[in-house]
Amino acid sequence: MTRLMQKRSRKTGLPPGTAVHIGEKRTERTRLQLLHYDAAQVTERELEGVEEGVNLRPGTGVTWVHVTGVHDVALLDRLGRGFGLHPLVLEDISNTDQRPKFEDYGDYIYVVLKMLHDGTQGQEIKTEQVSIIFGKDYVLSFEEAEPTVFDPVRERIRAGRARTRERGADYLAYSLLDAVVDNYFALLEQVGERMEELHGALLASPSPRMQQSLHQLRREMVLLRKSVWPLREVLGGLERGQSGLIGKETYIYLRDVYDHTVHVIDTIETFRDMIGGLMDIYLMSLSNRMNEIMKVLTIIATIFMPLTFIAGVYGMNFRHMPELGWEWGYPLVLLLMATAAGGMLLFFRRKKWI
Amino acid sequence: MTRLMQKRSRKTGLPPGTAVHIGEKRTERTRLQLLHYDAAQVTERELEGVEEGVNLRPGTGVTWVHVTGVHDVALLDRLGRGFGLHPLVLEDISNTDQRPKFEDYGDYIYVVLKMLHDGTQGQEIKTEQVSIIFGKDYVLSFEEAEPTVFDPVRERIRAGRARTRERGADYLAYSLLDAVVDNYFALLEQVGERMEELHGALLASPSPRMQQSLHQLRREMVLLRKSVWPLREVLGGLERGQSGLIGKETYIYLRDVYDHTVHVIDTIETFRDMIGGLMDIYLMSLSNRMNEIMKVLTIIATIFMPLTFIAGVYGMNFRHMPELGWEWGYPLVLLLMATAAGGMLLFFRRKKWI
Amino acid sequence: MTRLMQKRSRKTGLPPGTAVHIGEKRTERTRLQLLHYDAAQVTERELEGVEEGVNLRPGTGVTWVHVTGVHDVALLDRLGRGFGLHPLVLEDISNTDQRPKFEDYGDYIYVVLKMLHDGTQGQEIKTEQVSIIFGKDYVLSFEEAEPTVFDPVRERIRAGRARTRERGADYLAYSLLDAVVDNYFALLEQVGERMEELHGALLASPSPRMQQSLHQLRREMVLLRKSVWPLREVLGGLERGQSGLIGKETYIYLRDVYDHTVHVIDTIETFRDMIGGLMDIYLMSLSNRMNEIMKVLTIIATIFMPLTFIAGVYGMNFRHMPELGWEWGYPLVLLLMATAAGGMLLFFRRKKWI
Amino acid sequence: MTRLMQKRSRKTGLPPGTAVHIGEKRTERTRLQLLHYDAAQVTERELEGVEEGVNLRPGTGVTWVHVTGVHDVALLDRLGRGFGLHPLVLEDISNTDQRPKFEDYGDYIYVVLKMLHDGTQGQEIKTEQVSIIFGKDYVLSFEEAEPTVFDPVRERIRAGRARTRERGADYLAYSLLDAVVDNYFALLEQVGERMEELHGALLASPSPRMQQSLHQLRREMVLLRKSVWPLREVLGGLERGQSGLIGKETYIYLRDVYDHTVHVIDTIETFRDMIGGLMDIYLMSLSNRMNEIMKVLTIIATIFMPLTFIAGVYGMNFRHMPELGWEWGYPLVLLLMATAAGGMLLFFRRKKWI
Amino acid sequence: MTRLMQKRSRKTGLPPGTAVHIGEKRTERTRLQLLHYDAAQVTERELEGVEEGVNLRPGTGVTWVHVTGVHDVALLDRLGRGFGLHPLVLEDISNTDQRPKFEDYGDYIYVVLKMLHDGTQGQEIKTEQVSIIFGKDYVLSFEEAEPTVFDPVRERIRAGRARTRERGADYLAYSLLDAVVDNYFALLEQVGERMEELHGALLASPSPRMQQSLHQLRREMVLLRKSVWPLREVLGGLERGQSGLIGKETYIYLRDVYDHTVHVIDTIETFRDMIGGLMDIYLMSLSNRMNEIMKVLTIIATIFMPLTFIAGVYGMNFRHMPELGWEWGYPLVLLLMATAAGGMLLFFRRKKWI
Repeated sequence: MTRLMQKRSRKTGLPPGTAVHIGEKRTERTRLQLLHYDAAQVTERELEGVEEGVNLRPGTGVTWVHVTGVHDVALLDRLGRGFGLHPLVLEDISNTDQRPKFEDYGDYIYVVLKMLHDGTQGQEIKTEQVSIIFGKDYVLSFEEAEPTVFDPVRERIRAGRARTRERGADYLAYSLLDAVVDNYFALLEQVGERMEELHGALLASPSPRMQQSLHQLRREMVLLRKSVWPLREVLGGLERGQSGLIGKETYIYLRDVYDHTVHVIDTIETFRDMIGGLMDIYLMSLSNRMNEIMKVLTIIATIFMPLTFIAGVYGMNFRHMPELGWEWGYPLVLLLMATAAGGMLLFFRRKKWI
Repeated sequence: MTRLMQKRSRKTGLPPGTAVHIGEKRTERTRLQLLHYDAAQVTERELEGVEEGVNLRPGTGVTWVHVTGVHDVALLDRLGRGFGLHPLVLEDISNTDQRPKFEDYGDYIYVVLKMLHDGTQGQEIKTEQVSIIFGKDYVLSFEEAEPTVFDPVRERIRAGRARTRERGADYLAYSLLDAVVDNYFALLEQVGERMEELHGALLASPSPRMQQSLHQLRREMVLLRKSVWPLREVLGGLERGQSGLIGKETYIYLRDVYDHTVHVIDTIETFRDMIGGLMDIYLMSLSNRMNEIMKVLTIIATIFMPLTFIAGVYGMNFRHMPELGWEWGYPLVLLLMATAAGGMLLFFRRKKWI
Repeated sequence: MTRLMQKRSRKTGLPPGTAVHIGEKRTERTRLQLLHYDAAQVTERELEGVEEGVNLRPGTGVTWVHVTGVHDVALLDRLGRGFGLHPLVLEDISNTDQRPKFEDYGDYIYVVLKMLHDGTQGQEIKTEQVSIIFGKDYVLSFEEAEPTVFDPVRERIRAGRARTRERGADYLAYSLLDAVVDNYFALLEQVGERMEELHGALLASPSPRMQQSLHQLRREMVLLRKSVWPLREVLGGLERGQSGLIGKETYIYLRDVYDHTVHVIDTIETFRDMIGGLMDIYLMSLSNRMNEIMKVLTIIATIFMPLTFIAGVYGMNFRHMPELGWEWGYPLVLLLMATAAGGMLLFFRRKKWI
Repeated sequence: MTRLMQKRSRKTGLPPGTAVHIGEKRTERTRLQLLHYDAAQVTERELEGVEEGVNLRPGTGVTWVHVTGVHDVALLDRLGRGFGLHPLVLEDISNTDQRPKFEDYGDYIYVVLKMLHDGTQGQEIKTEQVSIIFGKDYVLSFEEAEPTVFDPVRERIRAGRARTRERGADYLAYSLLDAVVDNYFALLEQVGERMEELHGALLASPSPRMQQSLHQLRREMVLLRKSVWPLREVLGGLERGQSGLIGKETYIYLRDVYDHTVHVIDTIETFRDMIGGLMDIYLMSLSNRMNEIMKVLTIIATIFMPLTFIAGVYGMNFRHMPELGWEWGYPLVLLLMATAAGGMLLFFRRKKWI
Repeated sequence: MTRLMQKRSRKTGLPPGTAVHIGEKRTERTRLQLLHYDAAQVTERELEGVEEGVNLRPGTGVTWVHVTGVHDVALLDRLGRGFGLHPLVLEDISNTDQRPKFEDYGDYIYVVLKMLHDGTQGQEIKTEQVSIIFGKDYVLSFEEAEPTVFDPVRERIRAGRARTRERGADYLAYSLLDAVVDNYFALLEQVGERMEELHGALLASPSPRMQQSLHQLRREMVLLRKSVWPLREVLGGLERGQSGLIGKETYIYLRDVYDHTVHVIDTIETFRDMIGGLMDIYLMSLSNRMNEIMKVLTIIATIFMPLTFIAGVYGMNFRHMPELGWEWGYPLVLLLMATAAGGMLLFFRRKKWI
């Protein structure tokens, strides 16, 4: 559950607009990757300091600075001043416990969203905050750790394939959003497969271990939902916002990524429904199993209690018990016992218990 | 659950607007059926290549190209270029994991929806994606596999019956939408009948096998809901959109198909409610059955335990047990036992257990 | 559950706007009752054919044609042509599986709603579709079977009482709507009484038979809800619609019937809540009863098992068991047994089990 | 549940706008209290007939007629004609099964709401319908039975305290609304205390008697909700309505009473949540108790069954059972039994059952 | 549950706008802290009487009067008159059972919200009402008890750090709101940790004591929700309100605190979801445990009942029981018993019970 809330308490009492890193402690050096392109050419460099990056806006083409690591608050501050960002934006970038949102500051648009990946081999889903800022001719993107999901976008720009090179910063920002949302589908696919497996296993033979898996799935859905649901508003807002920073053609693409988000949300809700269904299967199987156990107990008790009683009667030491002297007493009692047991069995068969 | 999500992961990392077939693997050749009609005449042909189809828009009448199979991306691409479609549209047509939606591109309107049919003899509902594009004088429709639901529309055009022949592409597009929605009613009817049967069976004598059927029904409702619910927005949007491509008269028909969709959604929600009710019947029957079992056990134990105890007492080997020597000891003990058993039976009858 | 969905499949594949009777098969002759009135006089007649009715609109006063039976599609067709109705309207009238709705066709307004009555003596609620069409000077009303709920309206017109005679077709249409909604109250009253009875019975002593009644009530609520809920939109739409066909004064009345509908819906929701509560009472009583049964079993077993064991010990045939020879052995053992039983009883009393 | 629905069926079939008393039968004489005031003076009188009251509007100041009893339909009729009320208003006043609503008739505003009081000493909440009509210079208020909640308002007018005397009819109407809403708080306080008590009792030791109380609370919440929820719309509508009858200053007060209503609704929803929580506590306690019972049974059975079996073995009458002849046979068997019992006890302790 | 509702009944019957202290009884003296600042300097003083404070608005800079304690109604009254506050505002300040809300009175804006802190060491969350009034050049803030959460704001003003000193009263008001909302995060963090702990404990070994903790958490969530949910409307309203009292720059900050509130609400909803999940874990563990117990009972009974029966048979005293005389009778019977027990064990292993 810690994953559901980062430690914000360190921030309590500080003035608003103070950038404080909130999130997992990290010590890696912050990395800045600059990529400048227009239809004709691409320049790519690893920046040493922030100042460099700021000067690299030659007036034509698009400048993309990708920052890996948001814990170096001083660096963020310099970057923010360089690009003229509002202090609240810097605060939000370094505070990794943000709700996805978008804010239009006129000169630039600021978007926060959540990247989700499952840890290496483990089943726990991890959230990472991604911030995207785009103005007329630049895009800044921020990730908490080593990037992976934006690599294909960079690859495409390098290769000169697709439309990115011919278009502006708005299209690049869209491509980054699209990359994040596409990533959700991959994740949901995985979750869907685990659900499918669990479903099969539950129908075959439910075990308490599956209850754990169910709970795990449910918890992940809660987390996913919290991360993705607000994205709908974000993208809906962007699409409706009619900001001058976004070209008319790009709106069609934004609508597309909005539709994808709605599709992701639909799927999450459907998965929640399905998990509820699995829960019910499990609970019913518990009840069925209990009925099963009680039936065995009842059958055994119902057959042997009367028999034991009969045996008990003829184990009494009364001096005057004529049956004890009969020559056929013992076989007759055995017969009586067999009859009683048979009667019980018939009774159970009629009740469809056996 | 695989049916709830197609494998989209193949697409991750590709530039937006790249048409990639997502969905069940298919190898059949894509089939293109061309149908051109106006009030006076109907021309019908199987197309060999895409180029042909594009030239068949003589300026008067309506051209309908129905494409069966969306896995041949190259063919779709040529078709798209021929009709001037946006790359995102082509991407969405071949990606069969779309959420139903409509998009107005000015020159043409693009509608995605889901066809539902139950597989041959099996009970599993299968979804198939249907795309409909209509412009001023043409309609393109795309199905994943061999068409069935659009046949009556084609039949009516051929026969010259009904209004389709006298009207434009918008009316044809409406007819296709109407055919899909009508299909939902047929499906719901079937589901309703299975529910009815299950209801009767549950009231008669619930069995774990029915739990399976219940879960199956519930799962299908989740699937149905996911497919049909967004259609409401789609048709509502079309109706309100006031696109110049849709004639005034056709809006009345769109309102009608919109009403049908709302009716389908209502019915789905009602069915979900009913399935919840069946679930409760089943759960209560489990509880009732458990009570039943426990009652049997308790009655048997409560009668025979005291009797066995009495027998046990007179089976003790104490030297000084005067009762053992009494002439009427044995009959008296039998009487005592009968009395105890009778008392218990009376107690149970008073408790209404027997 | 068949009542939740009429067989629509007969209609699949037919062109839109084709009137096909969907609903219970009926063979009675369709009956047409004409009633023409103005403030001064009332004319009333049973029509033989449709043509007659159409001519009976003399320009002044209001013409009301009430049609009983919607299965004679040809007759409906002639009527529709006579009054200039849209084919979709005729389709909807004869298709008795409509969702309540209203449609403003400019010259006339078309309203579909559901009448609910409980069958003679049985408890099953039956739905019947009622269509009302009203234009400037005429009202057409359609019922599936012999009318009952509109009789008081006709009676009032005949008697000249109330305001109907002095007002237009809009007021008559309102009166018919009002009659239908008033009918819902009567029905809810009945359901409320059955709930009240069941409540009492459940508190007194729950039995599996009540589970049946509960389920029945719940099912009826689902049906009622499905029938009445859309009426809210219908009447809200009529009220807001500001159609030229509805006089200003009549809007006040429409608001009133709208308020009644909201009240009916509130009551249905409240009833659903109450039924949920009854369900919980029943479930808890099952649990309580189980606890009761288990207590009896546990008490009996806990008392007699140790006693039987003691008896068993002194029933052993060891040669060297000194207690067996004691003169007071038997009474002492009986005392031991009584003490053990007493201890157990004390234990149970302390646990508040007895 | 009768309290949830008044008998409306007497009204079915009557023309709309017919005032018919619906509600509890009452025979007391209807009482009319007139109060006329302006900033300078107050006149107060008990009216004998309606006509008198109508004449008492001298043009200045505010006239308040409070009617106790709405079953005298003829009197209401005369009153309505005197003040020019719409027949539907009169119908609604005497029909005490109204949903709270407000209607702006231009010259006057009509508000219906529900007063709630708990019966003398009993726990059942009783609803009473209150109607308030206010025009430019008069207020009519209607209660079903002897008034109590409006007394403080009257008292304040008499005493000349507060602002009522200096303001118009709108402020008086607001004061009456405020008195009703304040009353809800008192009621909720009581309910809250009963919940608190029940909570304590449930945590201490749950008993089936508490289930009854829980159900009672829940039922009352359903009733409360039905009565108060629509009030939100009523007051919101009044506030937004911008009727000319309500002065600007009074709108601030209406906003205040609106806020109170929202607060009441919030509290009701919170209470429903809490009752759900209490339900869960009760259900879990039933489960815990069942586990407890079963544990006792299992422990006893598991200890004594093996012991009884051992005793049974040495109670067998085989001629060749060497142990029976051993000198230490009996003590050894007793030791064996003690060991078995001890082992079982250890097993249970390890399982944390004892 | 008393915490969910303050005793308002003392107020019933009083005229609206009468300030009456509702809430915990308090006797401490009300404390007034005045702080006046502009960009250049800060003056700070403890006020003796209200009159003083009112005069301390020199026309430039911002005057902040913080009032600790709202039970001294007379003092509030004087203060209210001094700053020209509406009587309803004073009523709401002293009535600590308010729903969070904001009201724009033109000259000043009035905001009520709830501060939440957990009591010293205990786990119960306590609510405290905070009122903030701000006009053009002053801010009044009211707390029920000794302030803690506003101290950092005061500290920052004194230190001259941050932006507060350079900005107007609107920014100070925002800072106070921000301080309250930041506080919610700290609280949620704590609750999250307790949930995390409980989760671990539940998975390890559930105990009835945890049910108590669960219920406690759930209750707190209900309380939190009631306090925080309305804040969304409050801040949304402030942000949209476009009051002239709030500077353009401050709106960006209000949007930020609004986003935080939405984030808090999201987290509360997520926590409710998680608590529901914990509830399910607990319930399932109860069921699993019951199954476990029943299995032990059934295994023991099923093994020993047949054995005891066999022993009983050979304990019968029939004269003619040939087996009793056999030399190998006893060992054979022991063998038979071992075989029966072994068979049962195999049966259970096949059923996966052991």
